[in-house]
Amino acid sequence: MSLTLYSHWRATAPYRVRIGLALKGLDYGHVSVNLAEGVQHKAAYREINPQKLTPALDIGGDILTQSLAILEWLDDTHPEPPLLPADPLGRARVRAMAGIVACDIHPLNNLRVDRALETIGVSDADRRKWAVRWIADGFAALEPMVARDGAGFAFGAAPTLADCVLVPQVWAAEQRYKLDLAPYPALRAAAAHAAAHPAFVAAHPDLQPK
Amino acid sequence: MSLTLYSHWRATAPYRVRIGLALKGLDYGHVSVNLAEGVQHKAAYREINPQKLTPALDIGGDILTQSLAILEWLDDTHPEPPLLPADPLGRARVRAMAGIVACDIHPLNNLRVDRALETIGVSDADRRKWAVRWIADGFAALEPMVARDGAGFAFGAAPTLADCVLVPQVWAAEQRYKLDLAPYPALRAAAAHAAAHPAFVAAHPDLQPK
Repeated sequence: MSLTLYSHWRATAPYRVRIGLALKGLDYGHVSVNLAEGVQHKAAYREINPQKLTPALDIGGDILTQSLAILEWLDDTHPEPPLLPADPLGRARVRAMAGIVACDIHPLNNLRVDRALETIGVSDADRRKWAVRWIADGFAALEPMVARDGAGFAFGAAPTLADCVLVPQVWAAEQRYKLDLAPYPALRAAAAHAAAHPAFVAAHPDLQPK
Repeated sequence: MSLTLYSHWRATAPYRVRIGLALKGLDYGHVSVNLAEGVQHKAAYREINPQKLTPALDIGGDILTQSLAILEWLDDTHPEPPLLPADPLGRARVRAMAGIVACDIHPLNNLRVDRALETIGVSDADRRKWAVRWIADGFAALEPMVARDGAGFAFGAAPTLADCVLVPQVWAAEQRYKLDLAPYPALRAAAAHAAAHPAFVAAHPDLQPK
């Protein structure tokens, strides 16, 4: 099956999927969708994803959207190496970590939300505070979970769905918002450990077409 | 296994889990966490869920958080009736529908975000516009997906994870924001069909302790 990923180099949701594809050892074509330049609003991309968001994954004619759904699809269709533990409690904990980032942090500080806040007159300083607040809240929730369940990676000694989602968010927090990660030592250590893994290196924003 | 759900009657994330529990035919204890009164910030609840959000599900000593992770756990541990189709493409599409609500709509218009917007001086009118905008964007994305894949329910002829997430969001859109659903006929029909199912009736906010 031929795979083509529609991705923006610095957006964290496609970064998650790039990590998943690399962990599964899958080759894929790459189409750059530059969100900062508004390429997602053009007709050509709206045919791929009417929601005008990245990522989208063409799996040979069918288009998948939503990064978590795509990562679960990767795990359903290419079970090795697994992105989820075998036991239900472990699976729930990994998915909860992913959910904290994907539902409680990222939706509140992505590009479209930043622009919407700007439109209703929220200042640069208040927009930065807004973004940092949700990241800090989410990281505070993740820290004891990673401290309890991590063993190198965020959950256990092998990369999971949690790392696919956590590493891009930590990258954004540091690069974009200069967030101090000192209050989250377990999370910071897990993200650094994962970031050094070859699949995470290959998926890094700096190595993507722009 | 004894199950206890921490739930706020009108919050949509625990509503999703109540639907899942009812679809699986599971009995559970119910603890009301009144978010409007700030019960989530009290020490007793922070011991249950340090993130101070609902739902949390006590599964006999272990606490699960994040509604999608809990619904997936229900499906992992109680496979019948399934909340996901058997084929990977169908699973990806159901999970994408759930993701649009759980990642792109709900995080932007829940109580904590409404209060954060109020704190930075966003007016009542602009806050309502804000909420309606994200709901309308998400419903516009869902409409063609449900039109294509729905057959009574949002995906196919049986309830799935997509309905568990969609019905509470449609309820909130109508009850709280008086959103006109006319532009989304497939979505509206699927939500109405699901809402009449006994499991969805049992999970409805109006029947919950307050």
